[in-house]
Amino acid sequence: MTERMQVDYLLTCEADEDADAKARGIALEQTVELPDDCVPDAIRERLVGRVERLDPLPDRRFHCTISFDSALFGGELTQLLNTLFGNISLKDGILLTDIRWPDSVLDTFGGPAHGMDGIRRMTGVPRNQGLLCTALKPVGLSAHALAERAYAFARGGMDIIKDDHGVANQVDAPFAERLAACQEAVTRANAETGGNSLYFPNVTAPWPVLEERLQAAKDAGCQGVLISPWLTGLDAMRWARDHFGLALMAHPALTGSHFRAEHGISPELLLGDLFRLAGADASIYPNTGGRFGFGLATCEAINHRLRYTLGGLPAAAPVPGGGMDAARARGWLDQYGTDTILLIGGSLYQQGDLTAATETLRTAIGRG
Amino acid sequence: MTERMQVDYLLTCEADEDADAKARGIALEQTVELPDDCVPDAIRERLVGRVERLDPLPDRRFHCTISFDSALFGGELTQLLNTLFGNISLKDGILLTDIRWPDSVLDTFGGPAHGMDGIRRMTGVPRNQGLLCTALKPVGLSAHALAERAYAFARGGMDIIKDDHGVANQVDAPFAERLAACQEAVTRANAETGGNSLYFPNVTAPWPVLEERLQAAKDAGCQGVLISPWLTGLDAMRWARDHFGLALMAHPALTGSHFRAEHGISPELLLGDLFRLAGADASIYPNTGGRFGFGLATCEAINHRLRYTLGGLPAAAPVPGGGMDAARARGWLDQYGTDTILLIGGSLYQQGDLTAATETLRTAIGRG
Repeated sequence: MTERMQVDYLLTCEADEDADAKARGIALEQTVELPDDCVPDAIRERLVGRVERLDPLPDRRFHCTISFDSALFGGELTQLLNTLFGNISLKDGILLTDIRWPDSVLDTFGGPAHGMDGIRRMTGVPRNQGLLCTALKPVGLSAHALAERAYAFARGGMDIIKDDHGVANQVDAPFAERLAACQEAVTRANAETGGNSLYFPNVTAPWPVLEERLQAAKDAGCQGVLISPWLTGLDAMRWARDHFGLALMAHPALTGSHFRAEHGISPELLLGDLFRLAGADASIYPNTGGRFGFGLATCEAINHRLRYTLGGLPAAAPVPGGGMDAARARGWLDQYGTDTILLIGGSLYQQGDLTAATETLRTAIGRG
Repeated sequence: MTERMQVDYLLTCEADEDADAKARGIALEQTVELPDDCVPDAIRERLVGRVERLDPLPDRRFHCTISFDSALFGGELTQLLNTLFGNISLKDGILLTDIRWPDSVLDTFGGPAHGMDGIRRMTGVPRNQGLLCTALKPVGLSAHALAERAYAFARGGMDIIKDDHGVANQVDAPFAERLAACQEAVTRANAETGGNSLYFPNVTAPWPVLEERLQAAKDAGCQGVLISPWLTGLDAMRWARDHFGLALMAHPALTGSHFRAEHGISPELLLGDLFRLAGADASIYPNTGGRFGFGLATCEAINHRLRYTLGGLPAAAPVPGGGMDAARARGWLDQYGTDTILLIGGSLYQQGDLTAATETLRTAIGRG
């Protein structure tokens, strides 16, 4: 049995643009890609998108709901994305804002294998406390130098130490060498402190190499990895979930062109629902007040989408980052709740002593 | 030896935004992702992006050139995309407009295996004549019904008959069944007419399935396929090029959010340079005057980027489509030149008799 998925688009019409025609155009474009008079009746009834609702808003904007038969996706995440926003990405004034997911679609794609609870178990951080994450950088350091930084963070009790998402396989610190050095450094620090820091290497890579890096991370004893699904293709994350058992922290690189006011995919849907559906246990986003432009409401919406009841999918962890000030960490946990992983990099590096900076940060959030 | 790649961004500044700071911010964000005071001197010198040029334009816009050491990419297309626009996609007022590619980068990623000339050889269309392409649709038809349409187009002398990009693996026409039926139908029509039509199945799919479909297409005797690189991940196309020898026709699904006036990646760079670099032998784009919003200048720019001298990369074929009127085909070849593949679907379906419609179209472009 197939079910219909209800998809909301916020339409912004030009002065000479008819909203009805625009909505019907989306319904055709995203399914049969033919003029209406060329569509066989049986296919129109079953597979052409249905305009379920078209309500006017101020400023020539319209709240539009179109339903799609889930048979259109054929069980494939590539085709799900294509149906939601493939060709209409090339048009103007169409913002994908919400999806009511049929259970069958949720079951097909599956969601996080570990989620927030799983990451808590891996790190041993109890339920009423927030988590901390940092990034190993900059690109250009040797594997040894990055491992020294990993060691210093782990000595201070950092929960998750991930590669910077721009640290890939450059000659300065090739993946295999970096993986071995950083994982060894974190393991050694844990042995010394009795702590439980985790190293998440960046596995983002062209296809067959991605597979090799996931396997290498698993073999090295890592419990999770960093991946940028918009660089690898979203389905690569789902595939990784199904084959390695590693926790997956998703990075939003290259997603941001969608986050425009009048056209694209809303951040909470892309970094929330879609990343979660495709298996992200944790989803990084640029926190408000940092180097990027999200407002507080958008950040709260992403948090919600990663945690809300969505069929049987585990809740994923929001990971606000991107210019977060260590001095404000406590406030962000108060704001967002403790089921949050705070990603803080530059603000710790600026303090010089990474172990001391991490200890101070832990104390600030009541983990001292 | 590494070389520096020169990358142009068109910056649009807010009233309170400093262009120098914005440019330097990009140079840091896309490389070390650290505040300047945390960057070791040797790394700053070598790997931080260099602002080579920042020229004011009207309306608080600035022409900015930043150079990046090609060592940053580590030979990986995922990391190339990340360096060009990964994190800054999440900012505002940054439009990637041009790249001067070092030869070493072109050599690393390689470009089309066949290009326009290769597709001419496959189809047997001589140099002074344009090519024709159509799409099998709509989704919902059986494999048999789609094959009947393929047969009718091939009987009329259509050069390339591709799956619609929304026809994937739905139950109505599963990939394997459709591949067999359509390839058989086109082969049979060719045998009857002495023609040389090609069937390009849509192989866009989640990773391991993509590989199976490419192999199946090759085994069935297809000479090319359709792929949507923004759904699969761009590198999947490069990988396909290296392993199957099939011609690759790229579809722009999901790319369009980048094509905004003030922020994103320019269409000619994405559908031109980047798709060509990653192995597209032909690149579909929405022609002006159809269902989408590109202007003529953008279309001409894409054509140019697919054909211009770019190291030793073969020229790729522009494939304007998306609501093209068969009656205007001749005019488009006059406009764009005969090294063009005209993609015409709906306009032929509206005529009812697909063979006759194709014959009329051929006659109109001097292929009668």
